Amino acid sequence: MPTQLKMAVDTMIRTFHRCSRKEGNRFKLSKGELKLLLQPELTEFLSCQKDPQLVDKIMQDLDTNKDNKVDFNEFVVIVAALTVACNDYFVEQLKKKGK
Amino acid sequence: MPTQLKMAVDTMIRTFHRCSRKEGNRFKLSKGELKLLLQPELTEFLSCQKDPQLVDKIMQDLDTNKDNKVDFNEFVVIVAALTVACNDYFVEQLKKKGK
Repeated sequence: MPTQLKMAVDTMIRTFHRCSRKEGNRFKLSKGELKLLLQPELTEFLSCQKDPQLVDKIMQDLDTNKDNKVDFNEFVVIVAALTVACNDYFVEQLKKKGK
Repeated sequence: MPTQLKMAVDTMIRTFHRCSRKEGNRFKLSKGELKLLLQPELTEFLSCQKDPQLVDKIMQDLDTNKDNKVDFNEFVVIVAALTVACNDYFVEQLKKKGK
């Protein structure tokens, strides 16, 4: 039976490739593909965040070499940063509740 | 409805805290807790890997300050490294198949 962590890893890989195969380089996200991938995720994650430019700002930060491509390693860095931010919030809530 | 990526992030956070709450510091993994977390995951991931010392070696690498504790950020680094390794393997297989 697959472990929970393995399923999380599988999901990250599948999510990336489901978008990266749509156009251009099969193994990299174009700016359009990245937006397609991130927008529903960020809407869910950051529902209290109302900045309409947020996704554009994230893409500008990621696309450091200005080639409009994001590879898998860069994608994992985004997911890791989101995971740490979510955990910080979760721990803060636990501490407020005195758990 | 939760997105797939959000579920992956949730899984990483839950997996960490399910083990970290067992003993000592509520928000850090002791060496024993880390072993408890990693062993089934690595068995699944690295089923072709027969080195019985593998988990001990990973723990030695992670525990850089020798306090027998791993915090959430260090845990995310492990998961990110495993994810990149799995993706490299997946991409290699796809390329072999000419996809």
